[in-house]
Amino acid sequence: MPSLAKTLILFGATGDLARRMLLPSLYGLHADGLIAPDFRIVGTARSGEDDASFRAMAEAALERHVLPENRSADSIAAFLDRLSYVELDASRPESFGRLADALGPRAGDGIAIFLSTAPQLFEPTIAGLAAAGLAGDNVRIGLEKPLGFDLASSRAINDAVAAAFPEDRTFRIDHYLGKETVQNLIALRFANSLFEPLWNAAGIDHVQITVSETVGLEGRVDFYDGTGALRDMVQNHMLQLLALVAMEAPARFDAAAVRDEKVKVLKSLRPIDAASIGSHSVIGQYRAGAVGGAIVPGYADELGRASDTETFVALKAHIDNWRWKGVPFYLRTGKRLPARQSEIIVQFRGVPHSIFEGRRLTANKLVIRLQPDENIRLLVMAKEPGLDRDGILVREVPLDISVPNAFAGVRRRIAYERLLLDLVEGDPTLFVRRDEVEAQWRWIDGIRAGWKATGMIPGGYAAGTWGPTAAIALTERDGVSWHD
Amino acid sequence: MPSLAKTLILFGATGDLARRMLLPSLYGLHADGLIAPDFRIVGTARSGEDDASFRAMAEAALERHVLPENRSADSIAAFLDRLSYVELDASRPESFGRLADALGPRAGDGIAIFLSTAPQLFEPTIAGLAAAGLAGDNVRIGLEKPLGFDLASSRAINDAVAAAFPEDRTFRIDHYLGKETVQNLIALRFANSLFEPLWNAAGIDHVQITVSETVGLEGRVDFYDGTGALRDMVQNHMLQLLALVAMEAPARFDAAAVRDEKVKVLKSLRPIDAASIGSHSVIGQYRAGAVGGAIVPGYADELGRASDTETFVALKAHIDNWRWKGVPFYLRTGKRLPARQSEIIVQFRGVPHSIFEGRRLTANKLVIRLQPDENIRLLVMAKEPGLDRDGILVREVPLDISVPNAFAGVRRRIAYERLLLDLVEGDPTLFVRRDEVEAQWRWIDGIRAGWKATGMIPGGYAAGTWGPTAAIALTERDGVSWHD
Repeated sequence: MPSLAKTLILFGATGDLARRMLLPSLYGLHADGLIAPDFRIVGTARSGEDDASFRAMAEAALERHVLPENRSADSIAAFLDRLSYVELDASRPESFGRLADALGPRAGDGIAIFLSTAPQLFEPTIAGLAAAGLAGDNVRIGLEKPLGFDLASSRAINDAVAAAFPEDRTFRIDHYLGKETVQNLIALRFANSLFEPLWNAAGIDHVQITVSETVGLEGRVDFYDGTGALRDMVQNHMLQLLALVAMEAPARFDAAAVRDEKVKVLKSLRPIDAASIGSHSVIGQYRAGAVGGAIVPGYADELGRASDTETFVALKAHIDNWRWKGVPFYLRTGKRLPARQSEIIVQFRGVPHSIFEGRRLTANKLVIRLQPDENIRLLVMAKEPGLDRDGILVREVPLDISVPNAFAGVRRRIAYERLLLDLVEGDPTLFVRRDEVEAQWRWIDGIRAGWKATGMIPGGYAAGTWGPTAAIALTERDGVSWHD
Repeated sequence: MPSLAKTLILFGATGDLARRMLLPSLYGLHADGLIAPDFRIVGTARSGEDDASFRAMAEAALERHVLPENRSADSIAAFLDRLSYVELDASRPESFGRLADALGPRAGDGIAIFLSTAPQLFEPTIAGLAAAGLAGDNVRIGLEKPLGFDLASSRAINDAVAAAFPEDRTFRIDHYLGKETVQNLIALRFANSLFEPLWNAAGIDHVQITVSETVGLEGRVDFYDGTGALRDMVQNHMLQLLALVAMEAPARFDAAAVRDEKVKVLKSLRPIDAASIGSHSVIGQYRAGAVGGAIVPGYADELGRASDTETFVALKAHIDNWRWKGVPFYLRTGKRLPARQSEIIVQFRGVPHSIFEGRRLTANKLVIRLQPDENIRLLVMAKEPGLDRDGILVREVPLDISVPNAFAGVRRRIAYERLLLDLVEGDPTLFVRRDEVEAQWRWIDGIRAGWKATGMIPGGYAAGTWGPTAAIALTERDGVSWHD
């Protein structure tokens, strides 16, 4: 039984993620009575805040990022009482002694650490924590991405973490796993008998996973240009979605069983190599164009120089196991696309033969949408009411599974709420295990090696379009259209 | 290609069915432009109406039975122009000559006849029509139930009809087949790949079909007491529903293919005989009780004498073929039950193993409701939004397949509209073929013989309850509860 953390130490507490997501999430847990009265949150960062200025910053963040109907002055005041601040420079080991001192007797109780800092600070931070006695059995650590930029660097980080924290106390965050709808996908697959008989190569024609953004670089210049769409989105979020769609039924919903199944999928991904890269991947970089009615510059203009970084990638992936043999998983993600949209399409095969002559039958489809709104929709054919002169007229009817009215009055939570609570309570089921991350990287590195070996560079696409036309061709060659 | 009828002859045109259902249905077809401008309706009955009084009667019927928003004075006037009347006594052959005379040159065009008369008039009417030359290739005949009271009498009627009308011009009506939702069931099963893998003994635990009424005898004393629930409801409507749920996929949606498949099911019904009758059937007769807040008398009191007629029957049926081996089909119907409700429940098997420890998983279910409202609902498990301290909380979510908003603005049609149009146009798909009726009767007669052989008589049940407690036991012995 994992111990409940009594203290959360937030590294990077003054950063963007903390203000937009982490503090609002912690406030949500507080407001709903999900964290204990004596639970405390210690913010740390390099900036010279004190308790009062950190609380003021947190208060401003809550007012900006929590909807008015979900907060109250009293509740915010009580939440701010939980906060304190320790100035900390991770490159100076003595900082960690001050952190331990500030914790006082709490240092001996359960501690959850959330590391949302620059990747290069990971190693000194881990070392500092260990040296200050803050890596004992009572401490778990949550790690925000990016965890490396390839398999080798990921391993180096994982090794550094592992020197102080064993795997069962290391919680790698992929915030997609905290999303309602991602967990709903697990519920749908394994709490219903309806889908399982179809959930395989005999019943599913293909799967599409799209994560599209309308934004461009957004000031992430340095990070993004060294990263690109493949590593920014596919390596983590999209491969997690793919693994959840494709995994076998775990024996139980617990950390070992679920992650064992996911890693089996990731290890079964057919490598895309120099021979297949041309037919299984498309990369692009946006040029100037129009998004949402506004003219926007191209990537190179935003960056201020030419670059071979891909801002768009489309892949055709295969999972080489019994269940999925021959079923393509099409993935695409990119910036400056026409819509902000994250969704999984499970396209079932059509009926083998239509008994309704002359009627167009659309094959069933499950649409799992994560953004902009979260919902799950099953598309079925039903009779169109009324009289048809010749037989039965059918048409597609959408069934909303996560319908608002079925669960009315329930506040939509931030994905981090779930993950922070699990970190505090010590449930690693929705966190990413080391072998998963490394299997993800192994597949991703193969793709990058393929691009390099064949000299593939991104083709241009106008901002506001769905990427290079080659991305359309990638699926159309198989008789499949992207679901836009 | 069947010829379009230019004239509909309505036998029993002044009767209750004509006024409540047939004339409003014909008006609906007229108002929607579904019948040709030169199409005429000739009413016949024994009563001494003329064209004017028949039209007045029809007008009154439309005002009473068509919703104001679905009619207009102009449209009604134009409809009434289509009507004429011929007084006809079926026991007097010369009547039919007058009918033929009244038709004039129309006698040579396509004619549809709808027989909604007392069963004892069937044979003389058929004979009269034939004698008057009104049974030629240009004439089809629609027959309302009851078509006999057992296999022998049904055969006699069918033989009499067949003497004048070959099977392909004989349209036996079961108005349940005209219902939107019954046709939607066919669409659902065969226009989706979603259900077929589960639609068998491996995927379905059992099927329930309930047709419950709150009314008692309602003045149908003479008819009902000689009939009983088994013959009034099970032999026709409920066995048709069972056949549609259970049939194999027809090669196409046409009369031969669909009816071939239905009759195969009916012939595969395992006979219930003297040995199994006690464990596979329950019969009851209502006693005094309360329905809808009112005290109502028992059946014998309504009837004015003691009777062994069952006003309730529950059956456990089996279909002995590969698809359905071991899957019980529970049927029940009765009068003076707590609710007016016709529905089919397809209860799927639960998941073989729950990965969500401690969570109650409800097995998927398809609820096909014909009365009081028509809809189809699929019940699935989905994640309940929000944070659960321990894993994923799931709950049952209803998905409405025939949702009003998916097909907004479409008027709900009377089942007879579909059937009358098909009779006029000559499409027999939704009519009952002779071999179906006879297979239905063969199975029903076996049950009645079983009751007789074992001396089973109806047990009492209080009006306003779901029949004798033995009907509850019938399913509970199998671990199944009726869906009330």
